[in-house]
Amino acid sequence: MNYRMLIQYDGTRYNGWQRQQSTDNTIQGKIEDVLSRMTGTEVEIHGAGRTDAGVHALGQVANVHLDTSYSVEEIRSYLNTWLPEDIGILSVQEMPPRFHSRLNATAKTYCYRIATDPSLHVFDRKYLYPFTESLDRDAMKRAASYLIGEHDFQSFCARKTKKSTVRRVDSIDFEEFPGELRITYHGNGFLYYMIRIMTGTLLEVGLGKRDADSIPELILARDRSQAGFTVPARGLTLVEVGYE
Amino acid sequence: MNYRMLIQYDGTRYNGWQRQQSTDNTIQGKIEDVLSRMTGTEVEIHGAGRTDAGVHALGQVANVHLDTSYSVEEIRSYLNTWLPEDIGILSVQEMPPRFHSRLNATAKTYCYRIATDPSLHVFDRKYLYPFTESLDRDAMKRAASYLIGEHDFQSFCARKTKKSTVRRVDSIDFEEFPGELRITYHGNGFLYYMIRIMTGTLLEVGLGKRDADSIPELILARDRSQAGFTVPARGLTLVEVGYE
Repeated sequence: MNYRMLIQYDGTRYNGWQRQQSTDNTIQGKIEDVLSRMTGTEVEIHGAGRTDAGVHALGQVANVHLDTSYSVEEIRSYLNTWLPEDIGILSVQEMPPRFHSRLNATAKTYCYRIATDPSLHVFDRKYLYPFTESLDRDAMKRAASYLIGEHDFQSFCARKTKKSTVRRVDSIDFEEFPGELRITYHGNGFLYYMIRIMTGTLLEVGLGKRDADSIPELILARDRSQAGFTVPARGLTLVEVGYE
Repeated sequence: MNYRMLIQYDGTRYNGWQRQQSTDNTIQGKIEDVLSRMTGTEVEIHGAGRTDAGVHALGQVANVHLDTSYSVEEIRSYLNTWLPEDIGILSVQEMPPRFHSRLNATAKTYCYRIATDPSLHVFDRKYLYPFTESLDRDAMKRAASYLIGEHDFQSFCARKTKKSTVRRVDSIDFEEFPGELRITYHGNGFLYYMIRIMTGTLLEVGLGKRDADSIPELILARDRSQAGFTVPARGLTLVEVGYE
């Protein structure tokens, strides 16, 4: 049977989602280990978003094929009993055999949280990036508007790749909370470090170090070195994965 | 000038509020150190609630007499710049010279958060006590009703003391959230470990290990050994301090 899981995690102490040869300290690895113990066989799960080291998830989706007599509620309970406290399985449901959490995903939502007053974020401090310099929000929003649409985002990708670097960004929303500026990105997919480089670029615009209207040129350059700095992973959260 | 501060902290890594000879790892100590550096003199602050090791605060109140030309906003900013990320100063205000945060406090609110489904508390897990056994809420509420009022709470005090152990509990409220049972205590003051022992006793009632109607007898016994277990500090938060 093919199962779909909805997963939350605090990524602070992990080397990202994706299982690696060099370390067993990944979220995928932790979940696979528990499922392997449960079923007595090797298990591979597929995550919709391969979040980087230190990135969090409110709504990661993964699927896994299991041969088990456990009910979905028993699988969920088994996982939550044996997983560490910073990984939570919100739900497990049965899916058609062809469902694949990554290949079938059509939309992803990430948010980047900036602590403009970190003293107001004692309890969720690990999920925000402290940044107290004053920011020109209007310029940031104008810059963000140029990123929306289908573009080649090579300038915002930390890794050279032969695969397509064309993605579609559907919206970039700015929200103000007490002591927090939150930027939420909706799109059909994001490249390696893309959201963190876009956010660093927007912050440079907000600081006045970069012109909002220079973004179209930056996109056309297809050159990572011309974009802004990479903001830290701690402020980034995978919020939701969408399917048709 | 006498200043009043509103303070939040994640108590996880501290040996409680109160400065101790044996350790500099207290919240009072951290704040005093920064204020001493700011003013160049020794400084003593007075906290309204002397929270134990591992206990958190959403609304601790403290006062301090300072000889400084800094404005209240500058004092707040200086503190937040130099304090660690897990202590936040929400506000600083000038007060009449006689104001004393502890001696003038007339009401305190604490909440104890129980994670009935810890998988739903990945992001605030450090502020809840995981407790997944099923609980009879009605029995717990009946037991709690006996604790309300002015009583000698010696049975719920972890320390022998010659001072009065009479306190007034104004209300004990039960709230249900997804995966969480939250118990909020309002009163004029609480003894050492009193809320944690009351909560442990209520949990034993919820488990059926103790009769709800045995509470009046337990109060009269004035004997700590007859009350329930002490729940961990991690679930306890000082929410608010009230003044007339």
